Amino acid sequence: MDFQTELKGRIAETQELLMRYLPEEKGYQKTVLEAMNYSVLAGGKRLRPILMTETYRLFGGTGRIIEPFAAAIELIHTYSLVHDDLPAMDNDEYRRGKKTTHAVYGEAVGILAGDALLNYAYETAAKAFIMEPGNADVGRAFGVLANKAGIYGMVGGQTADVESEGAGTLSADKLTFIYRMKTGALIEAAMLTGAILAGAGEAEQALIEQAAGEIGMAFQIQDDILDMTSTLEVLGKPIGSDQKNEKTTYVSLFGMEQAKEKAGQLFGDAMERLNALPVQNPFLSELLRSLIHREK
Amino acid sequence: MDFQTELKGRIAETQELLMRYLPEEKGYQKTVLEAMNYSVLAGGKRLRPILMTETYRLFGGTGRIIEPFAAAIELIHTYSLVHDDLPAMDNDEYRRGKKTTHAVYGEAVGILAGDALLNYAYETAAKAFIMEPGNADVGRAFGVLANKAGIYGMVGGQTADVESEGAGTLSADKLTFIYRMKTGALIEAAMLTGAILAGAGEAEQALIEQAAGEIGMAFQIQDDILDMTSTLEVLGKPIGSDQKNEKTTYVSLFGMEQAKEKAGQLFGDAMERLNALPVQNPFLSELLRSLIHREK
Repeated sequence: MDFQTELKGRIAETQELLMRYLPEEKGYQKTVLEAMNYSVLAGGKRLRPILMTETYRLFGGTGRIIEPFAAAIELIHTYSLVHDDLPAMDNDEYRRGKKTTHAVYGEAVGILAGDALLNYAYETAAKAFIMEPGNADVGRAFGVLANKAGIYGMVGGQTADVESEGAGTLSADKLTFIYRMKTGALIEAAMLTGAILAGAGEAEQALIEQAAGEIGMAFQIQDDILDMTSTLEVLGKPIGSDQKNEKTTYVSLFGMEQAKEKAGQLFGDAMERLNALPVQNPFLSELLRSLIHREK
Repeated sequence: MDFQTELKGRIAETQELLMRYLPEEKGYQKTVLEAMNYSVLAGGKRLRPILMTETYRLFGGTGRIIEPFAAAIELIHTYSLVHDDLPAMDNDEYRRGKKTTHAVYGEAVGILAGDALLNYAYETAAKAFIMEPGNADVGRAFGVLANKAGIYGMVGGQTADVESEGAGTLSADKLTFIYRMKTGALIEAAMLTGAILAGAGEAEQALIEQAAGEIGMAFQIQDDILDMTSTLEVLGKPIGSDQKNEKTTYVSLFGMEQAKEKAGQLFGDAMERLNALPVQNPFLSELLRSLIHREK
């Protein structure tokens, strides 16, 4: 089977998994349930749950304990988009060609739906405690997920990012912090929880976390590159938007040449780490490659 | 020691506990950390962590495993207030005589600080997994906390409440749902997790959950009564606000007489349950009494 066909299968698998975990739309709180489901089902590459599941498989994981965690990380990713789109944040009416959650349900329900998704993520992951009570790895994975999603991870990066708007050119240190936190942290959470739940050793966990961080950073730099080099047709959104918004990017700070070199180097480092493992998951390697060598 | 002195001691204890768990204000994400701490330290009766800890003590709990959970529930309560105060929600500039979080830090940071507090609540509770890896009760308590805070608890109630504004008179059934979810669920979470972490049996857990639900409902009805019968001086906020805002309350639906009777009956039922237990915590009983027989 070629990679694209396999990827489609994984996305369909993840979609089916999400459907099983999404709430039923009934009761006096029905509106927020509809808004949650609308937000989750509005599309997306399901990258984080797939990365989690494939890292779990890399380390020989075969059980279903990964499922509530895979659903949870997509719920966390979705909540962050719902709140990012709010009028007081990026004020976006459309995402992936569809109306954003607050544009459909109003701002109050937009806020509540984001809150509900974040809370439901942990409620969902907590189902793993029912599946395997007393499994210490589940507790550890839980801690990692919560940590990487919060102030020392994604929310920390979002805050620094929000504060940087209109604040002039960022330092390389601050830009790296934002990329590492805002994008990198959830990719680290995905791959590290997958490794933990599969019972990977501590050294392997450290290696995976590092590789995931490099992939996350390379992914974000690739984003900056595409914003300069792609076309509206390929990217599906206007190019040159970073420049227009006077946003500091890896390209604006270091130039195109160095940005490409850095992305390639980070990707190479990550793959070298993964290749040094005694276990392999060719689909995961191919997926990581596709994230960096993408055109959109 | 009299009850008021004892209560002051418990509040000081909880305050000290919270201080230990709050994040240090440093790094590129400093603003959101400041906003979180500002929100938590803006005051409050610390009712939920105290209820949790006292229920834990009622069932003979003496360890520190309760601490991350006690901090977590106050973080959840605080996030709900921060988001409730946002312009798109209740649009409040002041709470307990202090500027609300978004009024100080702006709307974007207000949203992010609420998100950060909710996430940090679970990050904090997850510290219990490090304290006692493989303790299945910790996983169970975690599930209860997440469930009662979410769409089948507090957020569910908030949504139904937001949607009811300007929607005419509510049915008794819907009003009960909102009270049970918006106010009751976190009180249930507090007392039930306390019982679970102390190792209470299943029948005792069910009894505590029921009593907590009755207390929560009585507490909310008492709120309605005070809005009609108190004075600005005693209550610290304008009375008659429910009537002015054409809000359906227990009093507007059933009349003052029946409201008082109902609150008394619910409180009596809850106390009867607690008195039937072979264990007693006189401070907890006194605290519950003070919630219903309060004047503000």
